Amino acid sequence: MLMKLSVLRSACGSIRIRQAGLREGVCGFTRRCLPGGPTNVRVPLRAASATSSSGTVPKIVLDTGKQPRKDDEVAYERSWRDVILNTKEAMMALQKENPALRPMLSIIQAGKDDKILQINKKLAEKVGLNITQICLSKECSEDEIVEEVLKLNEDSKVHGVYLHLPPASLTSRVLDTLKPEKDIDGISDLNMGRLVQRNLSQSFVPPVASAVVDLLEKHKVPLGGKTVLLIGADGPFGVALQCLIERSGMIVQKSHASTQSLQRQVMEADAVVLLGAEHVDSVHQLVKPEAAVILCEPSLVADEHNIELTSQGGIGYLTAAYRIQNAVRGSSRWLQRQQYRPWKLRSLKLQPLTPVPSDIDISRAQAPKLVDQLAEEIGLLPEELEAYGRAKAKVRLSLLDRLHAQPDGKYVLVAGMTPTPLGEGKSTVTVGLVQALSAHLKLNSFACLRQPSQGPTFGVKGGAAGGGYAQVIPMEEFNLHLTGDIHAITAANNLVAAAIDARMLHEATQSDKALFSRLVPTINGVRRFSPIQISRLRRLGIATTDPGSLTQQEVSAFVRLDLDPSKVTWQRVLDTNDRFLRKITVGQASTEKGQARETGFDIAVASEIMAILALADSLEDMKSRLARMVVGSSRAGQPVTAEDLGVSGALAVLMKDAIKPTLMQTLEGTPVFVHAGPFANIAHGNSSVLADKLALKLVGQDGFVVTEAGFGADIGMEKFFNIKCRASGLRPDVVVLVATVRALKMHGGGPNVSAGAPLPKEYIDENLSLVAGGCHSNLRKQIQIADLFGVPVVVALNVFKTDTQAEIELVCRLARECGASHAVPCHHWAQGGRGSVELAEAVRETASSPSHFQFLYDKETPTVEKIRTIAQKVYGADDIELSPEAQSKIDYYNQQGYGTLPICMAKTHLSLSHMPDRKGAPTGFTLPIRDVRASIGAGFIYPLVGTMSTMPGLPTRPCFYDIDLDPVTEEITGLF
Amino acid sequence: MLMKLSVLRSACGSIRIRQAGLREGVCGFTRRCLPGGPTNVRVPLRAASATSSSGTVPKIVLDTGKQPRKDDEVAYERSWRDVILNTKEAMMALQKENPALRPMLSIIQAGKDDKILQINKKLAEKVGLNITQICLSKECSEDEIVEEVLKLNEDSKVHGVYLHLPPASLTSRVLDTLKPEKDIDGISDLNMGRLVQRNLSQSFVPPVASAVVDLLEKHKVPLGGKTVLLIGADGPFGVALQCLIERSGMIVQKSHASTQSLQRQVMEADAVVLLGAEHVDSVHQLVKPEAAVILCEPSLVADEHNIELTSQGGIGYLTAAYRIQNAVRGSSRWLQRQQYRPWKLRSLKLQPLTPVPSDIDISRAQAPKLVDQLAEEIGLLPEELEAYGRAKAKVRLSLLDRLHAQPDGKYVLVAGMTPTPLGEGKSTVTVGLVQALSAHLKLNSFACLRQPSQGPTFGVKGGAAGGGYAQVIPMEEFNLHLTGDIHAITAANNLVAAAIDARMLHEATQSDKALFSRLVPTINGVRRFSPIQISRLRRLGIATTDPGSLTQQEVSAFVRLDLDPSKVTWQRVLDTNDRFLRKITVGQASTEKGQARETGFDIAVASEIMAILALADSLEDMKSRLARMVVGSSRAGQPVTAEDLGVSGALAVLMKDAIKPTLMQTLEGTPVFVHAGPFANIAHGNSSVLADKLALKLVGQDGFVVTEAGFGADIGMEKFFNIKCRASGLRPDVVVLVATVRALKMHGGGPNVSAGAPLPKEYIDENLSLVAGGCHSNLRKQIQIADLFGVPVVVALNVFKTDTQAEIELVCRLARECGASHAVPCHHWAQGGRGSVELAEAVRETASSPSHFQFLYDKETPTVEKIRTIAQKVYGADDIELSPEAQSKIDYYNQQGYGTLPICMAKTHLSLSHMPDRKGAPTGFTLPIRDVRASIGAGFIYPLVGTMSTMPGLPTRPCFYDIDLDPVTEEITGLF
Repeated sequence: MLMKLSVLRSACGSIRIRQAGLREGVCGFTRRCLPGGPTNVRVPLRAASATSSSGTVPKIVLDTGKQPRKDDEVAYERSWRDVILNTKEAMMALQKENPALRPMLSIIQAGKDDKILQINKKLAEKVGLNITQICLSKECSEDEIVEEVLKLNEDSKVHGVYLHLPPASLTSRVLDTLKPEKDIDGISDLNMGRLVQRNLSQSFVPPVASAVVDLLEKHKVPLGGKTVLLIGADGPFGVALQCLIERSGMIVQKSHASTQSLQRQVMEADAVVLLGAEHVDSVHQLVKPEAAVILCEPSLVADEHNIELTSQGGIGYLTAAYRIQNAVRGSSRWLQRQQYRPWKLRSLKLQPLTPVPSDIDISRAQAPKLVDQLAEEIGLLPEELEAYGRAKAKVRLSLLDRLHAQPDGKYVLVAGMTPTPLGEGKSTVTVGLVQALSAHLKLNSFACLRQPSQGPTFGVKGGAAGGGYAQVIPMEEFNLHLTGDIHAITAANNLVAAAIDARMLHEATQSDKALFSRLVPTINGVRRFSPIQISRLRRLGIATTDPGSLTQQEVSAFVRLDLDPSKVTWQRVLDTNDRFLRKITVGQASTEKGQARETGFDIAVASEIMAILALADSLEDMKSRLARMVVGSSRAGQPVTAEDLGVSGALAVLMKDAIKPTLMQTLEGTPVFVHAGPFANIAHGNSSVLADKLALKLVGQDGFVVTEAGFGADIGMEKFFNIKCRASGLRPDVVVLVATVRALKMHGGGPNVSAGAPLPKEYIDENLSLVAGGCHSNLRKQIQIADLFGVPVVVALNVFKTDTQAEIELVCRLARECGASHAVPCHHWAQGGRGSVELAEAVRETASSPSHFQFLYDKETPTVEKIRTIAQKVYGADDIELSPEAQSKIDYYNQQGYGTLPICMAKTHLSLSHMPDRKGAPTGFTLPIRDVRASIGAGFIYPLVGTMSTMPGLPTRPCFYDIDLDPVTEEITGLF
Repeated sequence: MLMKLSVLRSACGSIRIRQAGLREGVCGFTRRCLPGGPTNVRVPLRAASATSSSGTVPKIVLDTGKQPRKDDEVAYERSWRDVILNTKEAMMALQKENPALRPMLSIIQAGKDDKILQINKKLAEKVGLNITQICLSKECSEDEIVEEVLKLNEDSKVHGVYLHLPPASLTSRVLDTLKPEKDIDGISDLNMGRLVQRNLSQSFVPPVASAVVDLLEKHKVPLGGKTVLLIGADGPFGVALQCLIERSGMIVQKSHASTQSLQRQVMEADAVVLLGAEHVDSVHQLVKPEAAVILCEPSLVADEHNIELTSQGGIGYLTAAYRIQNAVRGSSRWLQRQQYRPWKLRSLKLQPLTPVPSDIDISRAQAPKLVDQLAEEIGLLPEELEAYGRAKAKVRLSLLDRLHAQPDGKYVLVAGMTPTPLGEGKSTVTVGLVQALSAHLKLNSFACLRQPSQGPTFGVKGGAAGGGYAQVIPMEEFNLHLTGDIHAITAANNLVAAAIDARMLHEATQSDKALFSRLVPTINGVRRFSPIQISRLRRLGIATTDPGSLTQQEVSAFVRLDLDPSKVTWQRVLDTNDRFLRKITVGQASTEKGQARETGFDIAVASEIMAILALADSLEDMKSRLARMVVGSSRAGQPVTAEDLGVSGALAVLMKDAIKPTLMQTLEGTPVFVHAGPFANIAHGNSSVLADKLALKLVGQDGFVVTEAGFGADIGMEKFFNIKCRASGLRPDVVVLVATVRALKMHGGGPNVSAGAPLPKEYIDENLSLVAGGCHSNLRKQIQIADLFGVPVVVALNVFKTDTQAEIELVCRLARECGASHAVPCHHWAQGGRGSVELAEAVRETASSPSHFQFLYDKETPTVEKIRTIAQKVYGADDIELSPEAQSKIDYYNQQGYGTLPICMAKTHLSLSHMPDRKGAPTGFTLPIRDVRASIGAGFIYPLVGTMSTMPGLPTRPCFYDIDLDPVTEEITGLF
């Protein structure tokens, strides 16, 4: 079998790559020579030090000097052959376990191959280990070596590094640079320390030391409990050797050439290891019969005459065999690190105060773990992390490949009953639940939350990081720029908008010919379509890719998107509550030549690009969804896409980092993904598919991923099932339905609740009949909706301090009667995870029985039927009523082939019906479908039931009045 | 002197803080006890291991057992007193050097203080070392210990950690967690490895080992070259001890209780160290006279009866003395790390290809160093860095405090002659110059560049990261979101805009009373002004801060900003080239109740907030500039500020990360700051003051900071001197003036040059007379402008491949004749830093002679005079002509007290005059001042000379057509 050689790296063309030793077999060699040329070099095998004992290899064994040499050579050969045999077996097991693995040892050498190197390569080949050689010049500088070491450190294809360099080049800077897990010669400080501390599971033993110990252990007279005399072993290598020999149960005596008692020591020793050849003769004369004598000669220069080294019985082979063993061990450990690792989560202690302080005060009082620590605790690799400061990091999607074989954990959705305008605390329940699961029940769990819009942060009080003692920290980073994903969406969305208007202007003011010559310019005499233009040609049914061969009609079709200004559906966005941008006229400057038109801005999270971010399951999927986005239609009624505008590649570039979920932590140090936050009415209101998928792998089979759906279960949960689960292929195990006594009372007939106004007394005093009314109407209905999808429900009663025990017990009893598998009170806001342990236990128990998830409708069902199904089965409507506009849009979408898309209802969240005032579980109504729109890139049709505001406004006193920054401490005040 | 005790940390109120041992003297103790309560504990002094020799302290010295005890005690006492005396001297020297330093040792203990701890504290007090105690319960878990260790790792006030814990608690996880630089007991793997490798400068020797060696060294019979027998020293501590003893020149024999020859070894030894008390009696009997015997007893339990330990002569004192010495050394090393450190820059090799590949291909072919490596190389501390991925990091401003005493480096400005519309390559010259300085001349240097707007990235080709082989890498990260600063500016700018329109709407639709009750709401029965509202009251001259005591007139003045819609100067911004937003009408939705008005969007970098970011010299300064921003005026003609809107605290919060400059690197691995990028016409067009200041400290006294000014020298350089240097107080040493043969030919009378059109042949063929014409007109004038400010000029001729040798030589000769100190050709684009070595040498030489910098005008000069001075002296105008509007604005600004602000001319960059077609050095013209505006927060008045576009547009074929992302490799194509 001929292996393909991969070219490792091409740095500005500055490095010549020469491949040598292309061989058959499972083993490949890559060789890279740097300018300066190789030549004959000294062979270092370990760290330089001031002593002469550095850079040694054991050279010869003289068994009392009286035995024939041949025997020793045979013993040697058996030794290294054993090591290689074992190593080869380990290698085969490794590759059987992971056929894609190519164990790789990199050699940095100064000058050309010497004998030692040749032996190492020969043995590497025997076990099937791949080798890359980096040949520096003989006079290479420390900087050059460090540069190469750094590259190898970062190269995930390299599992071990052998610094085959002169001892003087192995400076402490070089050794400090080399990653200990690649230091197969065990010469770094850390590996040396681990050896001394007998902490060998992650360190490497210097191969020379292994070779010496091997020879001692295989000595014909067993040396256990016997005395081994080390002569000349002053340096660190001597220390390492001594530790190892002692570890084998022998007793080490150290001596020095100068010790007066040397003679006697030699005579008494059962084995003698000489570091340096100085006393070899006297040792031979004095040593007792049957004693082993091993000589390690300093800084052995490899040359043609060094027969001990090069013969099959030479000790160079044994040392090389142990080096190769270490390299394979390095690969094995690398592979081990790639495997799923059980969590070692260290939870942060929480001692809640009474009364509960403000959210920002609670957040600030808890020091988050460094995000790289958290990442390590949950089994992420350093290379999978992109830190953004100290408390946030993006996680690379390559994790999905690494853990593709890992079974998913349990998938828990947090949804809510129909809320009051004040919100009932789904985010706090979500955070409280994972705090309870991870920090108290010690079950791996992950919360997947939506990134909040920055607009409301400065508008009306209320963070999105949870609250009280169930929060994501640092909450200010969660609520502000985070890692810039929404900013990226804003940039991408508005680039599309700018492209639309600019294109309409250019089309309006230029001839076909002028447009064509600009769109397909002649560069260096050649006119060529760009790939994105070729895609458009294909959609237009034009087969040629030669710009010169288009007919005039084809040119016209190609250059004119002919967008109908009144049918541009694409809006601009800002992540600011700016009500004055709801409806605007653009293009009023004279430079825009009278092309003014009416349009508007939405809040950034309402952008279709946000919905795409939330639904994409890979970079490729996101890119093709971005290309498919329909921005309006032509005068002829054809949809115009982002790809038609030529902008979709740029959009993918703008969004390439945003696609990676952001890792943060709860107040108790448990992991959280924050990723995407699409609007819950005109979009599907759920956090991202990718965050859920990454988390499901990370928590492991017995872990829990708790993700949250926006609004009430009739909207957020329905869309989670029908849209998000359809896109992701994931199957939920449990629904946690959040209820509050407040909302239940409202649905049971209590007076109006509105933001800003004081709560009526019904909500403060005990009122069991209102509570019961709410349970029997809204709560029951929401449980039934989850039943439709075959997913069991746990009701989480988010307890407020005004709730009475009788109210709490009533809710729990009635919720179970209404079909909940469990119903429990939660006190996470005041108590943190400890307050949600009962909920966590209920979720664990419920998740242990299988769920029978099914979609509510098939994608082939006609659009109108899909809408009717949702209206009747979920909302409880008698029927739907389509406006003529809605009907014609549906016809148009069907004709365009969008009939199989799922439905994303844009309905008020304040009632199961379309009428916000109708509380409880309204019946006897017809759901009016005012209009129908489509997000083709995101992949859903959204019928409008009433008017949806897509741009919030600022109140008279926005909460920014209280927000401030201390310029000295850099602490934020007034943020929630 | 009574020291104030600082409470270290208050984590969610979860940690009780108890302060004990408040004492007089320079030494303070802080004690923090965790729940569970202290009790009597075992005393560990080092790493746990499987052997019984762990956790030992030397206990007694028996000098052959025949000498009287008293003598030993005296020797002991002398020993520890010597150590403490030396340590105290070191401490005093340390504090003299840095009076603010509070050397701090943290102790983590399980249970209450025992004798050993008391001794340690007593000796700490003697040397003035501060102690914090963290008292865990006796049964504390590994997690609890790790949590405390992690906190101490991150606490920059703690310089050493003493883990006074039972040996079983010192697990390898605990030891792996402790930062080696705080491990004063030298028990971590790394410190152990360093000791073995004799790499002691950054490691710590275990205090017990130091104590033993001290006693051996002070033995009455000198032990150099003599034999020390270690009995029972199997574990890592034995190894450490052996290494140390050998390092002192003694010969170590190791034995074991079981060694048959023990008896003889003892008899022969000159000193015996017993780890474990087992053989103490037989040793006493056998040891030769005058030999030293030291006993280290395992896991000594401190109790009242342990007199050896607690008496002044006990060995516990000596061990404690060495621990305290290590702690003070730790403080000293900490202080050392705080000092300015010479760079250890490792440059990246560059081997340029011919022909030069595309910018993105060059950038991608070079692997950047990890940003934390780069940071370390240039002397940044890890805690000063906030990584954003692997190649970018924000640098904290605390660096300025740390290095405040460090003299600044040389300050070099890169400016340009009047450019063609194609640009003449100031950024590439800047980058090429630092590549030459750092990578080739080995002089520390830093480039400070502006962050480019993302708009043009997708509009017209041309990156801002330099180009060819003089680039910042990764260029796509430089050109795209970077670290989100422009996004933060967009968010902050648009929050102001939203606040303006919303406020006008609310004022228009509410009574004074309604406004007041909403702006100053009653919360929990109390009505209170927020701090930002109190600032407004002060500006209104209202003294009271009690909302109830305002008169109706005062209420009205307070609640009504009464903004005149026609005098709102604040525009919205987007970082997108969106020409249709140049002039728009907002507020057309019915919800805005007919308050529609005309306004527009600028490109984000035109925001005043960007100018503020560039000019602020601290967080506090930025915050107060943001508050001062004038957004329009009231109907009564009074300016209305961001603070009046109540939004300035929120703006500071949005901008808190943006104020930190972003560290990146050039293709040759030399450091670059990217920070701020204000427009060069309506603002001052220079990168940030803070980036320059940080860089000037980092490069050190002999280093160079190269910063770049936008547009030609008549604009960018003039503003750099008069605005930026005035704000920063920094004084430039050299101006590098960039010229090209192309631009010189244009100014010498060559035909028009325009973007998109092919270059006329005059620009391709040699034409010496056009070149000479350009030198004698525009180049001479620009050199003279620099002369006005007293700063010497180096002309950098950015060589294109069409330039002939004769042209190049002519330019260099004429430039020197025109007053340049040097004039040299540069080939950085094709060759990288190597191509700019001549320029670097010229800059170095020029910077070595003093510059005589002066401002062009005094700030007290009347505004009109300032404008006239610039027009006449810099542009060469005969005079200025003010429109009536301009005059009245100047009068208004003077009346408002803005008359002392510097001037920021908004003039075309394509001519020294206001007429873009007038090339060379025009004379005989009057500069018309069409209008005058002000950026009060940024701190300048900007007269408008002609029309300035503040929102670019997209061409027919924007470059996004070519930009794409490979979804598998994640590589970007087509970006420049």
